[in-house]
Amino acid sequence: MQPVRVGLAGLGTVGGGVVQLLHDQAKLIEARCGRPVVITVASARTLTKARDLPLEGIRIIADAREIPHQHDVDVVVEVIGGDSGVARETVENALKAGKPVVTANKALLARHGASIAKLAETHKVPLLWEAAVAGGIPVIKGIREGLAANDISEVIGILNGTCNYILSTMTATGRDFADVLQEAQALGYAEADPSFDIDGIDTAHKLSLLAAMAFSSIPDFESVRVEGIRHVSALDIKFAGELGYAIKLLAIARVNANGLEQRVQPCMVPANSPLGQVGGPFNAVLAQGNFSDRILWSGRGAGSRPTASAVVADIIDLARGAVPYVFGLPVTMLNSRKALPPSACTGSYYARLMVEDRPGVIADVAAILRDSNVSMESFLQHGRDPGETVAVVFTTHETNEASMLDSLKRIGQLGAVREPPRLMRVLDSV
Amino acid sequence: MQPVRVGLAGLGTVGGGVVQLLHDQAKLIEARCGRPVVITVASARTLTKARDLPLEGIRIIADAREIPHQHDVDVVVEVIGGDSGVARETVENALKAGKPVVTANKALLARHGASIAKLAETHKVPLLWEAAVAGGIPVIKGIREGLAANDISEVIGILNGTCNYILSTMTATGRDFADVLQEAQALGYAEADPSFDIDGIDTAHKLSLLAAMAFSSIPDFESVRVEGIRHVSALDIKFAGELGYAIKLLAIARVNANGLEQRVQPCMVPANSPLGQVGGPFNAVLAQGNFSDRILWSGRGAGSRPTASAVVADIIDLARGAVPYVFGLPVTMLNSRKALPPSACTGSYYARLMVEDRPGVIADVAAILRDSNVSMESFLQHGRDPGETVAVVFTTHETNEASMLDSLKRIGQLGAVREPPRLMRVLDSV
Repeated sequence: MQPVRVGLAGLGTVGGGVVQLLHDQAKLIEARCGRPVVITVASARTLTKARDLPLEGIRIIADAREIPHQHDVDVVVEVIGGDSGVARETVENALKAGKPVVTANKALLARHGASIAKLAETHKVPLLWEAAVAGGIPVIKGIREGLAANDISEVIGILNGTCNYILSTMTATGRDFADVLQEAQALGYAEADPSFDIDGIDTAHKLSLLAAMAFSSIPDFESVRVEGIRHVSALDIKFAGELGYAIKLLAIARVNANGLEQRVQPCMVPANSPLGQVGGPFNAVLAQGNFSDRILWSGRGAGSRPTASAVVADIIDLARGAVPYVFGLPVTMLNSRKALPPSACTGSYYARLMVEDRPGVIADVAAILRDSNVSMESFLQHGRDPGETVAVVFTTHETNEASMLDSLKRIGQLGAVREPPRLMRVLDSV
Repeated sequence: MQPVRVGLAGLGTVGGGVVQLLHDQAKLIEARCGRPVVITVASARTLTKARDLPLEGIRIIADAREIPHQHDVDVVVEVIGGDSGVARETVENALKAGKPVVTANKALLARHGASIAKLAETHKVPLLWEAAVAGGIPVIKGIREGLAANDISEVIGILNGTCNYILSTMTATGRDFADVLQEAQALGYAEADPSFDIDGIDTAHKLSLLAAMAFSSIPDFESVRVEGIRHVSALDIKFAGELGYAIKLLAIARVNANGLEQRVQPCMVPANSPLGQVGGPFNAVLAQGNFSDRILWSGRGAGSRPTASAVVADIIDLARGAVPYVFGLPVTMLNSRKALPPSACTGSYYARLMVEDRPGVIADVAAILRDSNVSMESFLQHGRDPGETVAVVFTTHETNEASMLDSLKRIGQLGAVREPPRLMRVLDSV
């Protein structure tokens, strides 16, 4: 039978993994698809670079955008990355040429998901993107198909391995953020310019896609409220530990009748909970369905081989004739929800204050919280040091986010409060 | 567009959930499938029983085996259960009539998987069975499609909620097995005749199916080595806790070049590990792929609504034209592997001896282990009670299973050993 001929746009880490996998697993994949899957053409910026890959029989060209126009390409795999330029043009050229697409490009779909899904539908070709979120974990398929019968109300993920590695290492060693980041960069676990990861942008891209699939909507990256991990201190990690929590960069999306809440922020989760136990380079996703109840997936969120596993799973689906909708429903049926403001969101919180150790400070803090209707759950101050600055932390019961932000602003204005208060969300049931 | 007309064989717990779900989620499901999914006929042994279900428009008949022959049935859903009789005939009638089947019946597939898969292939109709393993967790799809590009070498699961509830409760309360079982029966968490669950048969059915999908083979239920939880004592749970472990009934399947290892047995796993943290009625599955690395799923393993979520996901797949192979590959391409004997398996172990507290006993035990080439890792005896019977436990490093069994047999023959030794597998990396 005629092979499935893949055009591979990008020969970097993920592209190399796809080449290797299609080579090593050729027999299994042929059995699954009923025909071979072969790469006929691949693109690379540097044509002459020596690559330790089984590239025999693969034509290498410089311009990825030409791949969709090659006569011997049935499916286009885009693993270049980036939300514009070559990657976007390659994907759009493929869809316009009526060729199915598999992509690992979260930035592109997070920013241009609506137009790309429309283009796919107009040209009646599927576009699959399992590898864009949580690497080797088959969570996009799990939500799109496995939970297809459910209304999903919430998804929570640990989606960035760099951040999780840094936070796990800070927790294990007690070291500071800057110190651990530098080491992660030296080890190649963090980029030279780490901002995309540690400021939460990558996580926000992935969250908007996860939410789109879970809630059958167009990705709404712009409305994700994003806070990275730069401000997580060794001190907060220490207090978290004492309270039984671990700090994780969580991606949280919820829907209710009033709208959509999407946030990326460092949160405290019980150290022994499923998410609290997700260490180092691992990713995890929780989804809450109205019939399935809560489902958890975890595994490797990045890396050449796990990501290739996800890319090739999509290729096999296409080869077997699957034609899923890009975001789980036809574009015209996708939901559109307004972003909820803080006044419409609730949560429990941890706050750390650096205060002058003198009588009456805690009474002032407690009075402000009482006036804002925020109920304190626990309170912690280690030792006494009259006249000096000491750390005081408290946690709250479930409360309105706007009230919390407002009372924290007022607490920050107290004379005895020496630094801007630090606030962190606490999630007890994850 | 013409609706998908479902014939539902069985109106028990799962069948009721399917009726409720297809009613409550009708709009979503129609959007996903591009046409409505409706139940036209259902079977129930008691036609007149009052049921709190939206049954309007559904014809109720007494004989499930007639469902496939109804003119207004396109898909047959079998949720009767049992490995023979009505359930088997219903499924076979449907396949012979060329009608796709969705089933939650693990016993049937575990015992007759080969002939049913052949029948499905002969008649060119798909048969899907997500709900047969791990309830609402989309793990069968996850393995069949999400990990389709991988060679999977190992699957490990917690697959029986009754056992996991009993073991979790024993751990939390320190109470004995018989006591907790009785309570579970009173609460409806365990059957009046609990043998099917607590002796590991249900878990073994599911394991053989999970292994079939993971390793692309025919289910081989007969070769599963099964040990239930009747002999797990409060004392072993206490020692496990002291060593940092929890006791779980694990389903373990592994393949290597020499064959297939399938076992169901109570095992010690680190209390803080992902599997150690799976409590109460929850299920979990780990799969080790050669590209994906290790993937974990967890969620509710039983119950009306979660199981219905899995059944209807399969119906939606069928409505969208999916035609997966029953066990991931065409029947003629499925692997057949011989079952590995204990001499070809390795593991780490915990053993508990009830010995007379007198000098020299431990030296005798240690000498037997040394002669069998079993390396002790830790050793624990609480207090002294000369002349009386005391509990002594030890754990071993990775060792050959046959050697372990042999040395334990010889230890049991020592004069100072007052009861048959208790042996339990220890899995440190789960």
